[in-house]
Amino acid sequence: MRSVLLFLFVMTAAPCVSNPNVPVDRALVTALRERALTDQLGFHWLKRICKPGGRLTGSPGLETAQREAENIMREAGFQNIRRQPVMVPGWKPGTASLVVTNPEMKMTPGLSVAALGRSVPTPEGGVEGPLVVVHSPEEIETRKDEIQDAVVLINEPFPAGVLNTFSGYGKLAPGRLFGADTAARYGAKAVLVRSLTTRNDRVPHLGTLVYRSENHIPAAAISVVDAVRLQELVQQVGTVSVKLRMDCRIEPDVPSWNLIGEIPGHERPDEVVLLGAHIDSWNAGDGAHDNGSGCVHVLEALSLLIRQGVVPGRTIRCVLFVSEEYGSQGASAYADWQSRQPEKLVAAVESDRGGFVPRGFYVDGTGAQLRTLNGWLPLLNAVSIDWFRKGGSGADTSHLQMAGVRLGLAVDCQRYFDVHHSENDTVDRVHPRELELGSAALAALAFELSENDVSD
Amino acid sequence: MRSVLLFLFVMTAAPCVSNPNVPVDRALVTALRERALTDQLGFHWLKRICKPGGRLTGSPGLETAQREAENIMREAGFQNIRRQPVMVPGWKPGTASLVVTNPEMKMTPGLSVAALGRSVPTPEGGVEGPLVVVHSPEEIETRKDEIQDAVVLINEPFPAGVLNTFSGYGKLAPGRLFGADTAARYGAKAVLVRSLTTRNDRVPHLGTLVYRSENHIPAAAISVVDAVRLQELVQQVGTVSVKLRMDCRIEPDVPSWNLIGEIPGHERPDEVVLLGAHIDSWNAGDGAHDNGSGCVHVLEALSLLIRQGVVPGRTIRCVLFVSEEYGSQGASAYADWQSRQPEKLVAAVESDRGGFVPRGFYVDGTGAQLRTLNGWLPLLNAVSIDWFRKGGSGADTSHLQMAGVRLGLAVDCQRYFDVHHSENDTVDRVHPRELELGSAALAALAFELSENDVSD
Repeated sequence: MRSVLLFLFVMTAAPCVSNPNVPVDRALVTALRERALTDQLGFHWLKRICKPGGRLTGSPGLETAQREAENIMREAGFQNIRRQPVMVPGWKPGTASLVVTNPEMKMTPGLSVAALGRSVPTPEGGVEGPLVVVHSPEEIETRKDEIQDAVVLINEPFPAGVLNTFSGYGKLAPGRLFGADTAARYGAKAVLVRSLTTRNDRVPHLGTLVYRSENHIPAAAISVVDAVRLQELVQQVGTVSVKLRMDCRIEPDVPSWNLIGEIPGHERPDEVVLLGAHIDSWNAGDGAHDNGSGCVHVLEALSLLIRQGVVPGRTIRCVLFVSEEYGSQGASAYADWQSRQPEKLVAAVESDRGGFVPRGFYVDGTGAQLRTLNGWLPLLNAVSIDWFRKGGSGADTSHLQMAGVRLGLAVDCQRYFDVHHSENDTVDRVHPRELELGSAALAALAFELSENDVSD
Repeated sequence: MRSVLLFLFVMTAAPCVSNPNVPVDRALVTALRERALTDQLGFHWLKRICKPGGRLTGSPGLETAQREAENIMREAGFQNIRRQPVMVPGWKPGTASLVVTNPEMKMTPGLSVAALGRSVPTPEGGVEGPLVVVHSPEEIETRKDEIQDAVVLINEPFPAGVLNTFSGYGKLAPGRLFGADTAARYGAKAVLVRSLTTRNDRVPHLGTLVYRSENHIPAAAISVVDAVRLQELVQQVGTVSVKLRMDCRIEPDVPSWNLIGEIPGHERPDEVVLLGAHIDSWNAGDGAHDNGSGCVHVLEALSLLIRQGVVPGRTIRCVLFVSEEYGSQGASAYADWQSRQPEKLVAAVESDRGGFVPRGFYVDGTGAQLRTLNGWLPLLNAVSIDWFRKGGSGADTSHLQMAGVRLGLAVDCQRYFDVHHSENDTVDRVHPRELELGSAALAALAFELSENDVSD
């Protein structure tokens, strides 16, 4: 299956679905990188996708960005461009405020909070109660006798010592996801969750919550600086009362769509290599790293192959999933559809870790597949890829269990949680060269996956 | 030689100079990383070293920084702290200006230039001549008939498509180093060198030049934006005349010093692992990435080992070299001294590629040494080190040919030439986590080098 039309490269006769032809492929991979870094087209696309600001699922900003991404697909020469309808949760973030209500006690500057995704609102006058500070969701259980009618602050610091900041995030995520649910069980009125970030900043870092029981109480993210201020205040004065007001609104599901485009395979159009990224974001900042960068990565990967005159053996498909932030409703709908198709999903690759410099790929696959992929490193070194490692490919691709192998682009993660889900996540925080290398890495990987088998 | 006193870790009985004891060393490496990322002491040191601003060799700013680094060594508990006297070039950068002198032609905003390091000044009234734009130093040769009495602009763009930006820099460096020398041969009055940077910015990126003949003409760095503006002007109007004024001054050599401190070896004090970085910088910006970060890396590497209670078998020595930017006079003086010592320099490791996230080490050594070092990767992965590769260890360590093996910390290089040798190189452009991982990587490597042999 090396019959790919490499207009710019020497053709070689080779058996169907061979191992990489290292000299030819190396020239192609280098050319993809040079084109990405020289044109920097992806960085312009990032500005276009991020122009509406936040792209919350169900928001007009998201729709504008989805239409812009479709324009980009057309300009870039994608084929079979289509929208796959998906119903997504309706929710309006509204405004939020938190004040200390102890007499003659005023916090200056004010406390910085924002509703967690899909939280219920407070009553119009807010909820007021004594502040109980815990340092983990487990501590809610051990101090359950203090929780009745309280406002609970989960003040769990980010574990700074980790190398992989995603593991630090993973440690803290249960507090944000389920803290309100746990606290409600013991009669809390509301929950405040210290922002999940590597920075010591004054802005809330958003994210979704999950209610597992029927008792829904409001929950907000609070900035790291303000969580620490409140804890210090409790240590100083003993009892602190706070009032939280939030006018977010839960609304009925609304129609949206996944956006799909592809380069049809020249030899095996019914075998598909999927590159996916979610296009929704939170409502603060531009969603530039999360996940405008991922959208650019997968759009530009296909575009680079087209610009380079490559027609792959297998179909390479780009999918911009909707509503990852609310629980991957888009990826779930796509997976339903995919499971009913006769075509074969050879591989699914996701980008959802920001637009930083590529370092490797995480692989959901067998040991044999990992060995095959590691054999491609001498090629992929040229696009800043130094390893394939066992690990989670991504939230959306986790729905695509029918894929022969699933991979996630691993970019350097040291700066991601500085900006994640906050107003810090703006286009100027993305470095053009780092972003472009991600696109080139995905283009190179997609090409190899389209031409070679990754044995089980 | 595994008798290192690991107060915090289980001791193991093992033969002298063994291979790494993976479980014990892994716990140590992880602890070094956690301490670095949690304390972030190195980032505070970076601010102290960079407080005087530029640290040009021979300047008061450099002396202030050298004294501050010595304070840090004392606070951190280094032993055998000493200054090694070195005579270094005296040169004052002064001010520079460039104007277009065609009648009724005024550039707004003005052109941004600065004297290249150790350039001669212009006469007081400046030098004036027609502008000849070339795109490489070689083009000076092919157009030598046009050069007489001209001001030559070498407008060579940075090769954006490279993965390793140092290779792009290496391609352009001859123009800056020798352009004035070549142009002088054909009667040029002065040379302007387009800044060697990955950015399209308005500030000059400095650097040294080298006169190889007796005919010294003045040379300046010009910002990328202004180099392009001048080239476009020549294309529009044909003949453009410019006047360059520079009042830089060449002065006699002045006394300075290399700064040395160490952790004496517990078992083999006469065998030395050297960690080195240059402390001088250019006079624009804070010299934060180049090379405040390298100084912090090597200072903090020793400090992390001390704070972690490690007493190494071999001596681990930190050297802050002076005058790398002018040609490594400090490293050369150190090498002279080292070659007269009975002690054995087991390894020399340099950090001079900025404070970005670590990715690997370049090795000046044999294939067998490279294989031994690659065997340490399962340990060093925990401090963001994914490879050892053949390559140049660094400018200062290149003088230390007596070392058993020479290594250079390879941090990610995508952003380095955005700031390099310019006013953009400020502390706020260094990310604390990225910086700290470099320190942890050097600490871990130094420990392994002190406990194990790297076979020839």
